[in-house]
Amino acid sequence: MEIAILRLGHRLPRDERISTHVALVARAFGAESMIYSGQHDSGLETSVSRLVGNWGGDFTIAYEKNWKRAIKEHKEKGFAIVHLTMYGIPIMERLAEIKNSSQKLLLIAGSEAVPGEVYQLADFNVSVTSQPHSEVAALAMTLDRLMGGRELERASDSSFAGKVKIEPAERGKRMKC
Amino acid sequence: MEIAILRLGHRLPRDERISTHVALVARAFGAESMIYSGQHDSGLETSVSRLVGNWGGDFTIAYEKNWKRAIKEHKEKGFAIVHLTMYGIPIMERLAEIKNSSQKLLLIAGSEAVPGEVYQLADFNVSVTSQPHSEVAALAMTLDRLMGGRELERASDSSFAGKVKIEPAERGKRMKC
Repeated sequence: MEIAILRLGHRLPRDERISTHVALVARAFGAESMIYSGQHDSGLETSVSRLVGNWGGDFTIAYEKNWKRAIKEHKEKGFAIVHLTMYGIPIMERLAEIKNSSQKLLLIAGSEAVPGEVYQLADFNVSVTSQPHSEVAALAMTLDRLMGGRELERASDSSFAGKVKIEPAERGKRMKC
Repeated sequence: MEIAILRLGHRLPRDERISTHVALVARAFGAESMIYSGQHDSGLETSVSRLVGNWGGDFTIAYEKNWKRAIKEHKEKGFAIVHLTMYGIPIMERLAEIKNSSQKLLLIAGSEAVPGEVYQLADFNVSVTSQPHSEVAALAMTLDRLMGGRELERASDSSFAGKVKIEPAERGKRMKC
């Protein structure tokens, strides 16, 4: 399964850290790439790319001013569009259908004001709890369910093959460089 | 099971939004309360309390300057201390042991620089993937595993009984007020 993320409406400086967390969760939980719209932010791109350089994997980040075009292009390439919103249908009620819909998914993680059109363009509007919390948590949980928890298996780390790697420890910090 | 969160090292303005996300995830995923240390932030307390007032539940937030005392007091009350850190043992390798250790858990979500003493005071240092990502995602995933996914069930919303409530929809936004 190929998973791309679309982060909508990035604003500076307000979303700097949240969008970074969205990107790092996307990478750690098995997505291949993130596109973001809103304000261009070379700092976001640099910090994510630097982390990928050190910790490994093929994750990429790119800016696309026109989010509507990004969605349409992914549709044309056969991606199913999954919009994460607290107003949507509970994720577990749509999980099987989403998995069966395509081998390629575009997950949309909005910020505060998501244009109404996104709800119409999406093939699925799904929620992670129907309570307000965090697009970072919603993305992590959605990827976890799509991956069937495989992102948590220790062995999966080897797939990153980075310059640095954590050696899990009962106490303190152990790294392999 | 009673779950409390300890958020370490809150800094203004840097952590405003991340700590808010930590608190909202804690509430939405079944924790009872959050204590935070670092800088006092009445804005954080107000925004979380206001959300609880509207969306329901009994979640509380409180400041404790002395995080060491907070940990020790929870230990004395029988809480098992679970520190979420990317350097720890993969969560799934310790989940059963954590669940069996106590009916009361204190989950510690650090920020950038966690004092070494935290690793020693914790009963468990556990990781959600051994990759850098987000304390918001690590907390959501840990609560999800502790709750066995029950936080995602639609029916569980009724436990919040707030003034406002989402009516899950295929498209757009539907609320009950």
